[in-house]
This record gives sequence, structure tokens and C-alpha cells, in this order.
Amino acid sequence: MSGRFIVIEGLEGAGKSTAVATVAQWLEKRGIAYTQVREPGGTPFAEALRDLVKQDWQETITAEAELLLMYAARVQLVANIIRPALASGVWVIGDRHDLSSRAYQGGGRQLGDEKLQTLKSLTLGTFGPDLTLYLDIDPDIGLQRARTRGTLDRIEKEAFDFFERTRRRYLELAAADDTVHVIEAGRPLADVQAQIIATLERAWPA
Amino acid sequence: MSGRFIVIEGLEGAGKSTAVATVAQWLEKRGIAYTQVREPGGTPFAEALRDLVKQDWQETITAEAELLLMYAARVQLVANIIRPALASGVWVIGDRHDLSSRAYQGGGRQLGDEKLQTLKSLTLGTFGPDLTLYLDIDPDIGLQRARTRGTLDRIEKEAFDFFERTRRRYLELAAADDTVHVIEAGRPLADVQAQIIATLERAWPA
Repeated sequence: MSGRFIVIEGLEGAGKSTAVATVAQWLEKRGIAYTQVREPGGTPFAEALRDLVKQDWQETITAEAELLLMYAARVQLVANIIRPALASGVWVIGDRHDLSSRAYQGGGRQLGDEKLQTLKSLTLGTFGPDLTLYLDIDPDIGLQRARTRGTLDRIEKEAFDFFERTRRRYLELAAADDTVHVIEAGRPLADVQAQIIATLERAWPA
Repeated sequence: MSGRFIVIEGLEGAGKSTAVATVAQWLEKRGIAYTQVREPGGTPFAEALRDLVKQDWQETITAEAELLLMYAARVQLVANIIRPALASGVWVIGDRHDLSSRAYQGGGRQLGDEKLQTLKSLTLGTFGPDLTLYLDIDPDIGLQRARTRGTLDRIEKEAFDFFERTRRRYLELAAADDTVHVIEAGRPLADVQAQIIATLERAWPA
């Protein structure tokens, strides 16, 4: 039987790492083999792209170039890591996937969702997560949390409006897709974890 | 008045560098200001992508990832260098452009031209060269020339069939596009240069 692909999405400081750990623990309890990946990244080539896209440049990185780089890293990860894992019955937990591009580049950078959808189907066809947990948080709170972690990368330095637009697009996309579940990530940790586990239990009853 | 964009295309060892120099000399004689760029590359970010795409990796680089990387570099170069130059009246000589992706990734890697056309219009719209000189050469001869220059990069190490398919696609694309001119690059240098100059003179009579 093939594995399932679970993705964690959300703004900076939404608590994605903790959510990944919560899903991992749930899978361990069930005795399900899994692997964790992050985007952009997850293969040596894709990690090199991650470094490029996050670093500061003297030149303006165009929204389209950033988008294409994200997809280059994504198709590489899907082809070389995610698909083989799923085919061998291993579940995959992804820290970000396609929804990030649709929210950040499509919403935040205002490239529009039509362009994003075309690029997605062009490069990944119908491939997608079985379930996505979108950790919804007020950008004000999320960015404050992210800042306490240390220096911000090129994308994290964007203006507040950018994250407001990104969050709005995330919520629109979640409303339009049954496989995307909104988790209220501003609540206390135990509550957030309970929401995640409840969502997993509903999707895959014991 | 805005500048013109002239592109040199062809397989490895077709003589692109010499052709770029021939076009540059022709522009100098005419007293036209110009700049030279190469693809992938031409900006610090795009040159970093060039390094990534040409180096050897332990993992297989998928045809789609390679394609997306080429376009990321291209949109960056067009936005930050080519368009501003043309707008200021400076002509641009390009060592490779979009036709390379359509021939190498579309033909050589067999991604098909429809996918390539969609990606092109998605990222560059209707932007394109005013004139392209495609230096046609037998891959046997071109690769032999390229080998004498030193070690081959990841793409140059492809099997002979790959270059045969790439050449075939180049010729098909040239036949379908009035702005692409086929130069017989297997002939003696003086003859090749004469073909290039004659093409430029026909396009822009003195």
C-alpha cells in the first residue's frame, strides 16, 4: 500500500516545526514508517536552491524568478524523494509544499493564482498532498516569534502587507480545498496539538 | 529609439563566441552602443544558477527542474539587464536565449514543445529576440571541437542522441520562425562570418 503525503503550511512563526513533530509522534504511535522533508530543499540540489533564494542579493530577485526556483526545487524533491517514498509505503511529512507558492508568490507577491495553477499542473500534474494542515496565525504574532529566533532571511524581511496578503490567500485556498484544514495556531500549544491530532484521527480513523 | 535584441544559438562547438564577436564588430562599425550577455547567467543570481545547473550532482537532475532553473535565470536577466538596456537604446547580443530551452529541454530532453511554449508565455509573455542566428553544425564536429576546449560540463556529457534531437528541434523551430536565420557553421570561418554579416545587413540595411 502506498504512503500518504501530509503537509504543514503557514506563515513564519506559526509553529510549523512543532506541528511536524506532532504529526511524526502520531505516526510513530500508529507504527507507520515515515520520512520528513522541507521546502524549498530536501535534496542536495534543492538545498542549494534554498540557499540561493533565501540569501540577500545586490540585485532585485523578480517574483517570477523566485517562483520558478521554488518549483525547480519542488519537482526535484517530488521526483527524487517524495514519490519513491510514497511508492514504497512510507508516509511523508512535508514542511511546506505547493500551497506555499500559491500563498507567498501568488498572494504575497501578487502573481495571481491562475499563473500559479498553470505552473503547478505543468510541472507536477495532479500530484499533491493527501492532507494539509494550515497553521493560521496573525502575521503580527508570527513575525514577532520568528524575530526572536534570530536574523531574518530575504523573504522574512518583507513588509507586513506582504504577510497579510499571504495569509489572506492561504485562507482562501483552504476554504476552496477539502484536503486543507485550518488549525488555529495562535492558541496555547496543547490546544494546537489537540487540533492537529483530531484532524489526523478524522482523516485516518484508527 | 529602443535597442534591438540579437541572439546567437547553436550546439556546443558551433562557434557561438566567434559569432558574438562578429556581431559586436558589425555594431561597432555602425556606431551602435551594445552590451553582451550569456545564458544561463548575466546577473550575479543567474550566474549562481548557471553554476548549479552545469555542475555534477550525485542525484539525477530532472528535466523539469533543469528547465525551471533555466527560466528562473532567464526572467532575471531579461528583467534586470536586457529590458533596461533595450529601453535605453542599447542593443543586446545574447549568447543563447529561449530557443536553447526549446531545443535542449524540449527536443533533447523530450519535454515537448507545448510545455515549453506554455512556460515561455507564462514567464516572458511576448518578449523575444528581434533576430536569432542559429549556427547549425553536425553534433559530431561540434562536440569534437568542444572537447578540445577542456572538460565537459554536466549537459555536454549527454549522449550523442541527445544532441541529434536538439539539432533537429533547432532546425524545426528555425523553419517555423522568420526571425531565426540558419547559419551553416561547419564551413570555413570567413564564410561563416560572411553569412552572419549578410544576415545582419539584410535585417538592418545601412
